[in-house]
Amino acid sequence: MLEFDKLSLNIPNTTKPRVVIIGGGFGGINLAKKLSNKDFQVVMFDKQNYHGFWPLLYQVATAGLEPDSIAEPLRKMFGSDDYEDFHFRLVRVTGVNPATKTVSTLIGDLPYDYLVIATGTKPNYFGNEEIKKNSFPLKQIPEALNLRSQLLQCFEQASMTKDPETRQSLLNFVIVGGGPTGVELAGALAEMRKYILPTDYPGLDFTKMNIYLVEGMDRVLPPMAPESSAKTLKYLEKMGIVVKLQTLVQSYDGSIATFKSGEQIKAHTLIWAAGVAGALIDGIPEETVERGRILVNEFSQIIGYPDIFAIGDIAYMKTEKFPKGHPGVAQPAIQQGQHLAKNLKRILTKEPLKPFEYFDKGSLAIIGRSRAVADLPGNMHFGGFFAWIIWLFVHIMYLVGFRNKLVVISNWLYRLFTYERGTRLIIRPFVRKGDRAGRKFIRSYGEE
Amino acid sequence: MLEFDKLSLNIPNTTKPRVVIIGGGFGGINLAKKLSNKDFQVVMFDKQNYHGFWPLLYQVATAGLEPDSIAEPLRKMFGSDDYEDFHFRLVRVTGVNPATKTVSTLIGDLPYDYLVIATGTKPNYFGNEEIKKNSFPLKQIPEALNLRSQLLQCFEQASMTKDPETRQSLLNFVIVGGGPTGVELAGALAEMRKYILPTDYPGLDFTKMNIYLVEGMDRVLPPMAPESSAKTLKYLEKMGIVVKLQTLVQSYDGSIATFKSGEQIKAHTLIWAAGVAGALIDGIPEETVERGRILVNEFSQIIGYPDIFAIGDIAYMKTEKFPKGHPGVAQPAIQQGQHLAKNLKRILTKEPLKPFEYFDKGSLAIIGRSRAVADLPGNMHFGGFFAWIIWLFVHIMYLVGFRNKLVVISNWLYRLFTYERGTRLIIRPFVRKGDRAGRKFIRSYGEE
Repeated sequence: MLEFDKLSLNIPNTTKPRVVIIGGGFGGINLAKKLSNKDFQVVMFDKQNYHGFWPLLYQVATAGLEPDSIAEPLRKMFGSDDYEDFHFRLVRVTGVNPATKTVSTLIGDLPYDYLVIATGTKPNYFGNEEIKKNSFPLKQIPEALNLRSQLLQCFEQASMTKDPETRQSLLNFVIVGGGPTGVELAGALAEMRKYILPTDYPGLDFTKMNIYLVEGMDRVLPPMAPESSAKTLKYLEKMGIVVKLQTLVQSYDGSIATFKSGEQIKAHTLIWAAGVAGALIDGIPEETVERGRILVNEFSQIIGYPDIFAIGDIAYMKTEKFPKGHPGVAQPAIQQGQHLAKNLKRILTKEPLKPFEYFDKGSLAIIGRSRAVADLPGNMHFGGFFAWIIWLFVHIMYLVGFRNKLVVISNWLYRLFTYERGTRLIIRPFVRKGDRAGRKFIRSYGEE
Repeated sequence: MLEFDKLSLNIPNTTKPRVVIIGGGFGGINLAKKLSNKDFQVVMFDKQNYHGFWPLLYQVATAGLEPDSIAEPLRKMFGSDDYEDFHFRLVRVTGVNPATKTVSTLIGDLPYDYLVIATGTKPNYFGNEEIKKNSFPLKQIPEALNLRSQLLQCFEQASMTKDPETRQSLLNFVIVGGGPTGVELAGALAEMRKYILPTDYPGLDFTKMNIYLVEGMDRVLPPMAPESSAKTLKYLEKMGIVVKLQTLVQSYDGSIATFKSGEQIKAHTLIWAAGVAGALIDGIPEETVERGRILVNEFSQIIGYPDIFAIGDIAYMKTEKFPKGHPGVAQPAIQQGQHLAKNLKRILTKEPLKPFEYFDKGSLAIIGRSRAVADLPGNMHFGGFFAWIIWLFVHIMYLVGFRNKLVVISNWLYRLFTYERGTRLIIRPFVRKGDRAGRKFIRSYGEE
């Protein structure tokens, strides 16, 4: 690979206004899709070369889907002639300079006319470095594959362990965070335990496998309606998941999880799905950042910086309906991206901008394969089969936008209906950072 | 992860004869499938937890297939009740002791009644450590994913490179080895160049991308008939691949490939598909090893050690028809595995063993998606469409044995016919060993 000084961004010069989008997530791609390349040159930077459908990431982690089912290469997404003045660069952005209207990357700088920050969030460990070092996050595909390897290796090791206490620790899984990620992950694990693992690992007693879901608040799925939270709790407990509400994790050293109450659980695996923080960039004025997110007005402009916008999870847009900003889920990012495209066009044509109004289409969560809860507009709440149908439909519609539509969907439906977990492959055993015993173990497996 | 002293193999005791199989490749799985668990306890060790369909590995490397399409977890393959006395352990074997009839692993020792070595081969660098360090092998799934990342990153970097000479080096790909792996990889790369890359990377001039296929002998596909070699050469050259016959690689430092003739090619990527060596195990008596493979008689027994067998690529069975041993392809391994299962049963029932006779069903090679050559029994040779149909049929039959049959096949056919290369994801950028600039580059992409 080349040293950075040999590389350059190679963005063609243009007389059109240049929109630089940092981030190829839900916000970034929906903005880029709606920006006409006749009016704008669009440049997108991301440190990954694909867009990921994060709501299904937990399925990659539990070997229900392969990464390619939920990821689309950005170059392919914007490969058609409609995007002939769209330019993607796989590069990390190191800073922005509002004074000179320049974005800095590891490869070089680029002047912009309009900058859109759509960087999303990263895990928030609340300052606890030990937890950060020893836990498994679940926000990116490599992390999902890492977690998948961890799960499979725990089972492999458990089937080779003499000591019952150690075996128990290998079969204890602590998920911290009772939001959608944690709930869906717990449900998927419970289904693995029930339908798949006893066949794969005869000789292991899976009644002894424990799944703990730990949440600091007084209910699971706090963003959803209380009815949906209650129903979800019922489903989780029916599936044999131990839900610990109003419980906070004090520390985790890789073997023992200690809660603030003093209680301890011995577990080889602790998954951190408990908090997110905005993925900020150097150069964003400090006064515009509140609670880790960038304050924007109802036009997604950073207050005081009319040429810089922020959309999606990173943005903090206080509105009447959402005084604490919009939920950190896909829909606000998608809608803000689409809305901003129209507003940028209005800037060009010197029309007045229109404020963003979030249309809350509702929330869904799936617990295992056949149970779901749904909050729909009009304060309607569903649980059970009807919610599940809605969940299925919505996700199919999302996936339909991806390549290999038919294939992905049939693949997925096949597995869904047959409880098959096909992709139980340990492709490359990964380790938790700092895990020296693990590294040694891994090296024994062929890192030649 | 646990330290080794806490683990143990946990194989249940048995009064039945215990067959230990080292390796879950074509030989190992076909043997295990035919060994009745009423008669034998079967234990399989492998350092991967899956069986891979290696003939299609080059498609994973060129983003044509995802790993799960060509890999099946061994536990799942042997999960049914037919295999209730089959035990899989994900563990590396460290040695065998014929005197005590014990296999040693990193986890512990296991006594055997019959031992079958089916470990296959690993790349042979002919003692050239520098080539080993700087080249990309293609024998395992992590290596295919590594190569895939390398290819994509070369294109990404090329689109960001100022210097034409460096850009050219990024777009030069040297494949060493004109056997099936090299030929099929070259063909797939050529198709990427023609159908996919110009759309993904507008602005890069792919007429400048060079694919070199380097072979030491005087023809490509040396194991096939001369007619097939000639036809293959024609196809390769039509696709714009530069074939260099009777050419040997002297050295490769990661930037410049030097041939024994003195000629040099600047290339960031050199793929080593040029030689294999048996994956031997400590304790196999030296006198039984010839040319890196284990000498066996026509019953697959190691000469002098009637309870130890070797099958597949690792075995060197000299027969009248095959005085140099059987070709290192799937069919001999499959047939030897199946035949050995029957012979082991004969040992049990005290019947005379039957010698192995290889039924050469022919050879196939595919060059790109629509050209193929086939050697069939009866000295028949085909090229072109008919050979391609045969290739397609044979591979479908193989894949049909895998899970998700319909899905994998439809997925694959879809891509085949649409020239789609769906999985162009850089999941985690990997580096060549020893590549310091690469590591730094990679760390910049989020190895946080």
